Order: sequence, then C-alpha cells, then structure tokens
Amino acid sequence: MKALVTGADGFVGRWLVEHLRREGDEVLEACGQHAPTDEHRTRIDLRDPRDAQRVCDWARPEAIYHLAAIAFGPDAQRAPAEALDVTVGGTLNLLRAAALLDESPTVFIPSSGEVYGRPTTERVLSEDDPIAPVSAYGNTKAAQELVALAYHHAGTLPIVVARAFNHIGPGQRDAFVVASFATQLAEVAAGGREPLLRVGNLATERDFTDVRDVVAAYHLLVAGRHAGGIFNVASGTAVSIGTILDRLVEISGLEVQIEVDPDRVRQVDPPRIVGDASRIRAATGWEPRYTLDRTLRDVWSDASTRVSLAVQP
Amino acid sequence: MKALVTGADGFVGRWLVEHLRREGDEVLEACGQHAPTDEHRTRIDLRDPRDAQRVCDWARPEAIYHLAAIAFGPDAQRAPAEALDVTVGGTLNLLRAAALLDESPTVFIPSSGEVYGRPTTERVLSEDDPIAPVSAYGNTKAAQELVALAYHHAGTLPIVVARAFNHIGPGQRDAFVVASFATQLAEVAAGGREPLLRVGNLATERDFTDVRDVVAAYHLLVAGRHAGGIFNVASGTAVSIGTILDRLVEISGLEVQIEVDPDRVRQVDPPRIVGDASRIRAATGWEPRYTLDRTLRDVWSDASTRVSLAVQP
Repeated sequence: MKALVTGADGFVGRWLVEHLRREGDEVLEACGQHAPTDEHRTRIDLRDPRDAQRVCDWARPEAIYHLAAIAFGPDAQRAPAEALDVTVGGTLNLLRAAALLDESPTVFIPSSGEVYGRPTTERVLSEDDPIAPVSAYGNTKAAQELVALAYHHAGTLPIVVARAFNHIGPGQRDAFVVASFATQLAEVAAGGREPLLRVGNLATERDFTDVRDVVAAYHLLVAGRHAGGIFNVASGTAVSIGTILDRLVEISGLEVQIEVDPDRVRQVDPPRIVGDASRIRAATGWEPRYTLDRTLRDVWSDASTRVSLAVQP
Repeated sequence: MKALVTGADGFVGRWLVEHLRREGDEVLEACGQHAPTDEHRTRIDLRDPRDAQRVCDWARPEAIYHLAAIAFGPDAQRAPAEALDVTVGGTLNLLRAAALLDESPTVFIPSSGEVYGRPTTERVLSEDDPIAPVSAYGNTKAAQELVALAYHHAGTLPIVVARAFNHIGPGQRDAFVVASFATQLAEVAAGGREPLLRVGNLATERDFTDVRDVVAAYHLLVAGRHAGGIFNVASGTAVSIGTILDRLVEISGLEVQIEVDPDRVRQVDPPRIVGDASRIRAATGWEPRYTLDRTLRDVWSDASTRVSLAVQP
C-alpha cells in the first residue's frame, strides 16, 4: 500500500514509517520545517491549505496516517490558538485536499485517551464512553476526530480513528514524563547531575503501551480498512508514575533522591485513565508484544546512549 | 452589554439582534456577503483570518454570539469540506482574534441537539449524554463546541455552549421542513399550486422550540455569564412531523392531499430526538413562552404574507 505519513519526523512518526516499510508499504514522509528532504520526504506546514494540496498531489496515497499535531498537552494548554490551528486547522486543510484526489485515500486519525476527560467511574474506558475532555489538548484531539468523521458521515472519505492512551519508548522527547525520568537518571549515571530527581505527581495512574505496539495497531486498523470505526489503543492496565520511576531507578542501578517539583505537577491531571482495547483486539487481533519492563529497559538504554554521546569530549 | 452577533442576517440572527436590542444591549452585526452595511453592520467571511481580526477590532465586544455557520444539515452532508471550513475553520479564526482583544469577550457557541446522534435510549437527552453525531452537520457542531471549549479549558476565553434542538418560527427558509409545509400551503391558498403537498418522513419525532424562545435562552446564558457550561435549549416534548403538518393544514383551513417525496426523506434521520432542558431552567429560570400552536399560527401568517406579496400583480 502507498502511504503518506504526516508528522513523519515525530516520535510516533519515525516508528510508524519504519514499521510500515518493514510490512512492505511504500511510504512517503511529510515532515516539519527542519527535516532533510529527498524523493520520499518533503516538508509541510498544513496550516497553509496550498501546502496540504501540494503534499496530497505529490503523494497520491492510498492511505494517509495524519500524525502531524501538537502532541504535548502543556503546549496546547499554554497556546490553545496555535494548537487548534495545527491540529484542527491542519486536519481541515489536509482532508479537503485528500477529498479532491481521484482515488479517495483512507485517512487515519490518531486521537487520544484524553478525549474522555476526567472519568467519573473506576472502570476502564470503552469507545462508547462520553467524549468530555478537560484539557486544551484533549479538546484539540476530540475536535479533530469529529472533523474527520464528518467526511465519513458524508460518505466523502473513509476515516479510521484510534484513541491512543499513553505511549512510551525510545526516542520520545524529554518533555514527556517517562523520557524525562530516564534522561535525568542517565545524567546522574554519567556524572553530569547530582543524584536528585525532580518529579511531578507520582500517584497519577496511566495506561502505558510501547510506541512500537501502538504503530503496529495503527497499521492493522488501516490495512484492515476499518473505516468509520473508533478504536482504543491501550494496555488495559493502570500503572502509577511512581511505579515507572521505581522500575527505572532499579534498571539504572543508581541510588537517587526524589523531589516533587511543583512546576511539573500539571494543573489538569485526572488521577487515573485506563482504556479498554477489546474492540481493536476483536477487529484486528492486535496484541501488545512489548512488556512494560522491556520498554523501560529500552528507554533507559536509549537515554544512556544519548546522554553519553552528549557528554563525550 | 456590547454584543457582536455573527450570522446576524440569518434566521436566528435576526431574531437575536431584535431581542438583544430590546433587552438594552448595544448590538453590532456581522453579516454575509449580500447584506447592506451601516455603522452597526459589517460583512464578514470568517474563513479569512484577517476578516475575523478586523471584525473583532471593529466591534471590541463584551460578548460574541457566534451564529455564522452552515446551519442546514443537508448542505453539510453534500459539501462537508465547505461546512467544516465555515463552521469549524470560521470558529478557529474568530476565537484566535477574540483572544487577542485587550478585554476577553464571553463567546457564545450555538451548537445543536444533533451532536447526540442517534440516541440508543427512549429517554430525553441530557448534556451528560455522549456526543456521537451521525451526520456531517452534527459533526461540524460537535467539533465547533470542542474547539471553543479548548479556549475555556486553557483559561483563555470564557465560552458558553448551547445545544439547541429544532427551532422554528417566522422567517425560516423553506429548506426547513416546517417552513416548507407552510409555504406550500400558502401557495395552495393563493391558487398558485394544486392542493397536493410533497413531504418527507412524517413519523420522525423532534423537539420544537420557537426561535424567539431560543434567542431569549441564548441571551440569558450570556447575561448570566455561565462560562464553561453546556446547556440544552429544548422543549422536552417530542412532536412528530405529521402532527405539525396536520396542525398547519388545520390552521390554513385547506383540504389537501399528502404525497411522500423520496427526495425529501433524509438519508440520516434518527427517529426521535428530545432534549432535557433542566440545566438551563435551573441556571437561568428560562421557560419557553410560545406554545407550539402559537408558533405554527405565526409561521402560517408569515408564509401567507410572503406568498401573497410574491404573487401580487
């Protein structure tokens, strides 16, 4: 299948491109303004409708994985206008252009477990639970879903929506909590930092999946042409941030002190978010292959390599 | 209060402007491309970000009633890209501009009962029922709500959302079912049409409120500064399209035949939609003042006047 990946130079994008190529797809990459370009790779700013048109005409894809978005919650909270322009406005422009292609591509929208907001129940969240985001980021992703599904309901474009819960793995930037822990620990190990970790709320419970399992799920949904469907991509298990930290400290073999930094405690932070992935399992047979322990060891290894490269003379 | 009304020349807009002026507000009107202009009235195309900026700088409002949208479901179904550009893209542009004003205005978003989609229960719909639109129009309004609430959740702009169920009254265009019935009957009465009415699905049940009660609700929500809230505006009663037709025929005093026209049966048409308006009643004391019978008599009178003016020699 000929696939266009937007946001191909992002954390999830890089893993998705690698996965799709391994699965035999022909992949074209649409990247941000600083990426190198070649015959398979172009730069885009989807806030510009002409750029959306250009990239669709260039790629003429059978599938579009539309990963370009403001993907970090606090960025959206700080600058909602920009987050909406990129995530929602960019999607308006991309879909308008995609609908003008001779052959309609399937468009994949990676939404988020944050669209469910602050769940009032202790149960795991199914796709039938209400959309009720409480953060600017959750709102941008919920609006993006609805924009895309308008095309599906009008019969204009086949749309597949996944609601990914927290995903982690090698290559994630330090603004995200697990990557931040690993980098701080690697800096301690390299001697560049005192053995003191600054952390946010450790009691918060989230549902973590390895990014490599997440991109495998995305591919299965598109390859199976599950258009019109909304699918949670989740482990189904709640793990506290404190548990992740303890395990990373253990993997690192270090002895460190933990200090809560008020700047890292998010204003809007539901205590527990867990997703039910029965629907995608039933539809595609998807199963996560990476255990949390394997993922954290890979994250640690990645952070150690980056830090040791950075401190080399 | 100084209020900017977008879509001021539309069906709801005209009634809202009149109501706000009667309540003592200073009203500035932003209209479509064919409206006359004066010192209180300008033309806008909110798809252009510069136009959004210009209208906000011109009005410097304390409140914005953002009524400009693709308001007719089949229009959105036929051309989702355009409906999304106008309703969602226009909202992105307007809110970005509003957030740049020195004093943040309260922004009122008139959403729709169609955001609930095809209800699986027979109960009336409360604001806590899931957003699950099944039409392109319902998707545009749901996405618009979420875009606006992103600003609220980021603490950038106070946002008030109303979900209006079907509203009817004098001045509605004939594409809407009740206005269409009244116009056809008026044409029969004027001798310009044989006594045969072409209708869609008569069994469909909807929740009808007089447009004059709807705009009163909008004003109460903004005047009471119910920011962050989502409020159904509904009668709480299901009435079938057939009942409306029977009553209009009775009011007209005509004898007519009824014929179902397949072109008028909508593809996506949930059998029954009724809203629970307890929340707005409790918050503002809002009560509908127009009975269905009074509304239908006014709609008939309006249609008769228009048709008799049109056929005058």
